[in-house]
Amino acid sequence: MSCQLKESNEGILVSNAKELQDAISKAQPGTSIVMANGQWENVEIRLVAKGTEDQPITLRAETPGEVIIQGQSDLKLGGEYLVVDGLYFTNGASPSESVIQFFINKDTLANNSRVTNCVIKDFNKAQRNMTDLWVLFKGKYNQLDHCYLEGKSNRGPTIRVDLEGNESIRNYHKINDNYFGPRPPKGGPSAETIQIGNSSTSMTPSYTLVANNLFDRCNGEVEVISSKSNFNEFRGNVFYKSQGSLVTRHGNYCIVDGNYFIGDEDSPQVGGVRLIGTGHRVTNNYFYNLHGEIFRGPLAMMNGIRQPAVNRYFQVTDVVVAYNTWVNCSSPWQFGVGSNVDQKEVLPRSEIRSETPIRTLVVNNVIYNSEGDEMPIIRYDSIDGIDFKSNVINNQGVAFRGVNGLEKRDFSMRELEENIWVPTSDLSEIQAYYGFEFDQIDKDLFGNSRSESSSIGATNGARPEKPNIMDVSKYGPDWYNPSADDSAKETHAVSTAADFAKAMKSAQDGDIIELASERFEFNYSMVIDKKLTIKSAKPDSKVSLVYAGPAGTPAFEMNPKGKLTLNAIILSGSGENYAFATLKENMSGLYNLKVKDCELSDFDYVLKAYKYSFSEYISFESSLIKNCNNGIELSAEDDDRGEYNAENVYIVDCQFDRVNKNVIDYYRGGYDESTVGGNLLVRGSTFTQCGASEENGILINTYGIINVDISGNKFQNNPVEQVARLWGAKNNSHADNVITNSGALIVEENLPLKLMY
Amino acid sequence: MSCQLKESNEGILVSNAKELQDAISKAQPGTSIVMANGQWENVEIRLVAKGTEDQPITLRAETPGEVIIQGQSDLKLGGEYLVVDGLYFTNGASPSESVIQFFINKDTLANNSRVTNCVIKDFNKAQRNMTDLWVLFKGKYNQLDHCYLEGKSNRGPTIRVDLEGNESIRNYHKINDNYFGPRPPKGGPSAETIQIGNSSTSMTPSYTLVANNLFDRCNGEVEVISSKSNFNEFRGNVFYKSQGSLVTRHGNYCIVDGNYFIGDEDSPQVGGVRLIGTGHRVTNNYFYNLHGEIFRGPLAMMNGIRQPAVNRYFQVTDVVVAYNTWVNCSSPWQFGVGSNVDQKEVLPRSEIRSETPIRTLVVNNVIYNSEGDEMPIIRYDSIDGIDFKSNVINNQGVAFRGVNGLEKRDFSMRELEENIWVPTSDLSEIQAYYGFEFDQIDKDLFGNSRSESSSIGATNGARPEKPNIMDVSKYGPDWYNPSADDSAKETHAVSTAADFAKAMKSAQDGDIIELASERFEFNYSMVIDKKLTIKSAKPDSKVSLVYAGPAGTPAFEMNPKGKLTLNAIILSGSGENYAFATLKENMSGLYNLKVKDCELSDFDYVLKAYKYSFSEYISFESSLIKNCNNGIELSAEDDDRGEYNAENVYIVDCQFDRVNKNVIDYYRGGYDESTVGGNLLVRGSTFTQCGASEENGILINTYGIINVDISGNKFQNNPVEQVARLWGAKNNSHADNVITNSGALIVEENLPLKLMY
Repeated sequence: MSCQLKESNEGILVSNAKELQDAISKAQPGTSIVMANGQWENVEIRLVAKGTEDQPITLRAETPGEVIIQGQSDLKLGGEYLVVDGLYFTNGASPSESVIQFFINKDTLANNSRVTNCVIKDFNKAQRNMTDLWVLFKGKYNQLDHCYLEGKSNRGPTIRVDLEGNESIRNYHKINDNYFGPRPPKGGPSAETIQIGNSSTSMTPSYTLVANNLFDRCNGEVEVISSKSNFNEFRGNVFYKSQGSLVTRHGNYCIVDGNYFIGDEDSPQVGGVRLIGTGHRVTNNYFYNLHGEIFRGPLAMMNGIRQPAVNRYFQVTDVVVAYNTWVNCSSPWQFGVGSNVDQKEVLPRSEIRSETPIRTLVVNNVIYNSEGDEMPIIRYDSIDGIDFKSNVINNQGVAFRGVNGLEKRDFSMRELEENIWVPTSDLSEIQAYYGFEFDQIDKDLFGNSRSESSSIGATNGARPEKPNIMDVSKYGPDWYNPSADDSAKETHAVSTAADFAKAMKSAQDGDIIELASERFEFNYSMVIDKKLTIKSAKPDSKVSLVYAGPAGTPAFEMNPKGKLTLNAIILSGSGENYAFATLKENMSGLYNLKVKDCELSDFDYVLKAYKYSFSEYISFESSLIKNCNNGIELSAEDDDRGEYNAENVYIVDCQFDRVNKNVIDYYRGGYDESTVGGNLLVRGSTFTQCGASEENGILINTYGIINVDISGNKFQNNPVEQVARLWGAKNNSHADNVITNSGALIVEENLPLKLMY
Repeated sequence: MSCQLKESNEGILVSNAKELQDAISKAQPGTSIVMANGQWENVEIRLVAKGTEDQPITLRAETPGEVIIQGQSDLKLGGEYLVVDGLYFTNGASPSESVIQFFINKDTLANNSRVTNCVIKDFNKAQRNMTDLWVLFKGKYNQLDHCYLEGKSNRGPTIRVDLEGNESIRNYHKINDNYFGPRPPKGGPSAETIQIGNSSTSMTPSYTLVANNLFDRCNGEVEVISSKSNFNEFRGNVFYKSQGSLVTRHGNYCIVDGNYFIGDEDSPQVGGVRLIGTGHRVTNNYFYNLHGEIFRGPLAMMNGIRQPAVNRYFQVTDVVVAYNTWVNCSSPWQFGVGSNVDQKEVLPRSEIRSETPIRTLVVNNVIYNSEGDEMPIIRYDSIDGIDFKSNVINNQGVAFRGVNGLEKRDFSMRELEENIWVPTSDLSEIQAYYGFEFDQIDKDLFGNSRSESSSIGATNGARPEKPNIMDVSKYGPDWYNPSADDSAKETHAVSTAADFAKAMKSAQDGDIIELASERFEFNYSMVIDKKLTIKSAKPDSKVSLVYAGPAGTPAFEMNPKGKLTLNAIILSGSGENYAFATLKENMSGLYNLKVKDCELSDFDYVLKAYKYSFSEYISFESSLIKNCNNGIELSAEDDDRGEYNAENVYIVDCQFDRVNKNVIDYYRGGYDESTVGGNLLVRGSTFTQCGASEENGILINTYGIINVDISGNKFQNNPVEQVARLWGAKNNSHADNVITNSGALIVEENLPLKLMY
């Protein structure tokens, strides 16, 4: 024992990286190393040691949550029976490929080790294209539990289980009782919350358990969980308004049992379970208020490819979907999702998803709709390979195209707690179908035994206790409250340019700047790196902002986490500078922009989004945009890998006048149906004399964007060939536009696409 | 119990199908049904019943081997705990898709059931393109043991384990202590002896055990065993001069432990273990006298395809090859087999086998060559992804390109029993590499514990008992002796055409017909359906046979099992009939033809092979062939699925004179590297004035044949463009030919191929 290290009966207290390393190098089974409270900057912890089952080696915070790991820091474990407890990673990023990982190098993995009671928050690399993981599993029998992880915005799953090498298969890792806080959309693939394996290792037996976690608005991409190996289990998790699905993407024989999928009336993005492959069992799950379609369907059972490549879509075979309940979901059952045989002329054989599910059971399920659904079952292809037995639906008498084995029945339900409905009618009189190995479905959603009492649907009919699924104290560390930092917002009234500048700097996140003079002039870019509202002090009288900064610079520079609302402002430029632009690099987090009741004029660009920048919301409402060279430019992601620059773009009740090109230029390239984003709404707006310099002859460019709605607009005297060219095969629509002397608005069913695979 | 059924304390004796069915329908746990000795014709046995573990239901022969099942007969089992014992299937064929199968229909499978002590011999469908199986497994925990299976010649594996449906996975079937007698080459794919799964079900956990079987000359195709699912085990089997390999074709994590692979000095066809995929463990195996190359290498570790389709070649990853011994094998280690990156210009991306083995261990192995080998390791591609440790070789001082981890060492071996050599030197002093989970390699080849004493190589260094691997009484039923029917051969001397005809009919298999006159004339086809030799009574004086039969009919009609040797015969036709031809249909077995010291003239065809016929050996030696429209025609397999009409074709020291077309026409179409056959030798022969009517301008057509050797021949004044067009990428060669006024002999590296996948 080094005499420099203090030891108490509670462990060896260390205060800096050197002491920490020293203590680790001397650790014996039973050693407890205690990191002193405070900020640990740029610390690369390498916990390499061998504990035993009875005497693990522990690294813990002096006080949980008060050891702040920041800067360029990470934690790597190697050895046996290690425990890490109570650390808080924030204000920094990993200098390596992961923040926490269960291995040192290929010869030194961690086994039987645990990270518990920790937080990782906003610990992002500088740009979204820079890849890392927050937790990387290798080895066997490792665990992440009672942790809180929020805000990953760069490329890479939040957690990945790596299955390369015999040392990491049959791993029996546990990921349990964690709180996965919001993950913003990334605008492209590789933003799963948990990924288990990858297609190249999808033949491995994994046996990872993901249990009792809360996934709260995990919106990173279309897959919240991407299971890519065999024999994984997903039990008792709550998916709350998360814009994605639990997907058995590769690998087979997974168990999805007793999970809650809670949606949102207003969101078509929140999904349920999407199934690909063989032998999965989906049992005792509860689906509520889900309104996703196709890939995001409440139950989305896909078509596969004939003789698929290992990284493409396998046919659904031998799958069991039993004892689940869907309440108030739109089209709860969607089969043959991804069928694209109608596109076989434009796709290579290796991309044709023609193989419908076979040898598959859908039995003993309950569907309840408090308002009838005209299409509770969507068939994208034949469902002949699926056996339906002993399912019931209460569709309030609304007619629909049913199947044998789904009985219409009048039964009632009650709300047990918010979002959770259970039958009040006795459904146990319905003879459940008893299939092969159904004895293994021995408990219901709430954990009640099905052997004493059973019923079709997720709950066995016993009088249930409330599950309290949204009691957030059940998830993550005790010491961390994710909803705590709502401080009061302040309003700063400013009358001079100098005060304006000062207020912009001193304002706190969420504050409001009120402009109390008629005109402000400034010649440097205002940095927007927090949530701010800038508005006229008098709602009915707009304030002029004149930006005199150099060519190519923006009046407002959108930084990571910058969320700007402009209200009742007349913003003008020099003709060569920009109204808004992102940083050219290091956009480590997203930005938002909302412009309402404004006038923007005389800019080279209204908005210039640079590569790797990403916005969740861009909204222009009731505003006039005129005399600009370029409009809203969101097309910097040109790698054709499914990436794009903004999730939601709303243009409502605006007027565009003499915007010469790129009036709205929004781009997503590459054939990848697993990125299903880009949302553009252009409504109630007028475009006049725009597009004069547009090289491609299209006024509103939406190439590759999945969801586009152009309706109720007027296009007058725009010298372009086309107003827009929409993608018919996707969710692109137009209606009620009045087009005068402005070219055509055309729809192409199948866009020419660059194949990624 | 029906009063018509006799019951003894040994069971219920049944004498016909009705009684049998009646007894089955009434069977209770413990019931034993006894089939009366005798011939059971056209009996379709449906053994559907439920026994228990303690009280199975048994169906057995009154005397094992004396219940002959023949005609259109089969056996299907459904239920639980059934035993079938002592039946003999011969002189017939299944009317269904299999002779014995462990299921009735999709709702009635057999589980925990056993077929033991039975024989299936030559029970073939009428033509080789008609598919069936001899034993089809479904369900779980079924067993085939102590059976003898010989002579399957039609399409379809001898045994297949079917893994479709959850009821048939994790099956733990056992195939043990069987004697797999000779299976002739089929001349195309789908002639495995055992296939476990298929590519579409290759993701399933199978856990089939194949143990302690003898595979005696199982030559059906390039895969003796084709493992196409996960977690199968192959233990303690003997592969004796079987022209194929044990192949982990699809699926992963198989165990190949303690098997014997015995080759033949003269055969480049006998293979060892060929590896594809992930996580296999090849341990404690013994390889002797193997001389195969590439797909048939003693150890053939393949290259995979990047992102392969499920039915193509997966990369080798995470494989362990440890504690094996190779004795007197040519190039025992062959890596990167199937690498074809040099052909990427002519192949689609989905066929490029570019991915070399990775994360793979080759450790603790022993190589011994009593004569040094210049290339014990063949690298078809990089071996950087393989770790070699603690291997030794005695190469008798012959230099070769080695690897780190393969130590040259002088040690000696002795012959423990025929084919089995063990070290006499102590190799236990060499420090074995101890890898992940090597504790599971706890026994050696002979079953001796490695914990007390261990050594690198297949044997642990303990003084071994003889394994008696070729003691055939250890395999198959006690009551059946596969080598029994060698009766004495008879010679029939005939002087008149009538006697000749009579003798041809009355002769027994293996007999000799001696022609004692100078000339015989006949005008109907002689049927050859057994092994016969026809020769001149005086070896130095040829006998004339004049065939005057109708146009299009053959002098000798080759029937299934017909094996004709013609010796010192002058055979002539009408110019419009044939010398030899197969049946046009119902060629249920193969035929052989050997022509020596003969003269053949004035035929439309010398040999006409119809579609679906197959010959293992066709040999013309020291013979003259003249004045024929067509020569040797072996090109009826035109489906381009890898099939062909003859395995071995030898033309040695012959003379071809004025054969107008199809002089030698031998064809195998389709891109399928898993059929590696067709062998043509043309040596020491002379071709003059042949090919005058040849439409394609090629004298000797060998399109698609893998092994071709044209050497030491003379080609004089043949009016063709090309003597031959050889396939450079395959084993095609030519040498020492003298070509005069006969076109060119050309070699094309890559033939244009029709892709099958």
